[in-house]
Amino acid sequence: MKLLKDRIIAEGQIISDTAIRVDSFLNHQIDVELMNEVGKEFSRLFADSGVTKIVTVEASGIAVAIMAGLYLKVPVVFAKKAKPLTMADAYNAEVFSFTKQKSYNISVSKRFISSADRVLIIDDFLAEGHASEGLISIVNEQAGAEVVGIGIVIEKGFQKGGKRLRESGYRVESLVVVESLSSGAVSFA
Amino acid sequence: MKLLKDRIIAEGQIISDTAIRVDSFLNHQIDVELMNEVGKEFSRLFADSGVTKIVTVEASGIAVAIMAGLYLKVPVVFAKKAKPLTMADAYNAEVFSFTKQKSYNISVSKRFISSADRVLIIDDFLAEGHASEGLISIVNEQAGAEVVGIGIVIEKGFQKGGKRLRESGYRVESLVVVESLSSGAVSFA
Repeated sequence: MKLLKDRIIAEGQIISDTAIRVDSFLNHQIDVELMNEVGKEFSRLFADSGVTKIVTVEASGIAVAIMAGLYLKVPVVFAKKAKPLTMADAYNAEVFSFTKQKSYNISVSKRFISSADRVLIIDDFLAEGHASEGLISIVNEQAGAEVVGIGIVIEKGFQKGGKRLRESGYRVESLVVVESLSSGAVSFA
Repeated sequence: MKLLKDRIIAEGQIISDTAIRVDSFLNHQIDVELMNEVGKEFSRLFADSGVTKIVTVEASGIAVAIMAGLYLKVPVVFAKKAKPLTMADAYNAEVFSFTKQKSYNISVSKRFISSADRVLIIDDFLAEGHASEGLISIVNEQAGAEVVGIGIVIEKGFQKGGKRLRESGYRVESLVVVESLSSGAVSFA
């Protein structure tokens, strides 16, 4: 998605060989018009997937998921990062954050995913893929629903998540794949 | 806003005399079409306020703020709930949560609010008003920007936040004011 690549080049701040900060338009300040285009693009990509629900993780996935939901005309559920809710009420998964080098729990109320749902997972970043795997555990293994696809704004192609998810048979659509952040420059796949 | 009142009556779960759960459409599962109407309504209410930026708090304020930003055509900044960031980089405020009976810190990068901004504060709930006051401290006192209004989806009229903010001179627009949750029934102002 050219609009997004241009923005990453113009405003992305490379923090290290594996980290880029895009908080001026994606995950702290949000360019709503850009998110609108991102939402349209996800809607176009998954138009024929029979999506009934979008699932994401708070907080930075929400804006993207909402815009995709607006065009796909389905509700959004965001998993909460919190202590595990009691098992009678919620699905839980443990997610290891590569960026923060620690684990956290995500929870979704059982009331909001049924086995009949066809779920599109949406997130702002895909790196090692642990957040997506946590959501797959909740949606697929625990709720018995189908994951029809995974929509990512920025995939770090040099980390293993995308490859592993695709090899497991999931359809992963990343609007931008960053191939390298070495030598202080962004290169795209 | 009738659409919202109807939904609260149909799906709101009264937890106590001061708490109502609306997580089936507002703050866990999100009815995107309803949020779209909420965004349009905030846009209509604040159309003449010269808003340059919307500021909210993660996570449940984001969906509402994004939809308001879509129609007002301004960026959204969400304050992060985290340990205080270093003062050189961020504005910080401490917020006491009535619901959780504990304090937490909110942070906004200094890069995203300038003294020239005219800020609309958006949140899903207004109860004691501490989250709004934390954002006012950041936007007004710390960044030197103007708070042109506060847009709230559900105000708890029986708690003191709305009264105190209005007495301080702020324009508070609540789409729904819940007057009472006593005796297991919702009544509106």
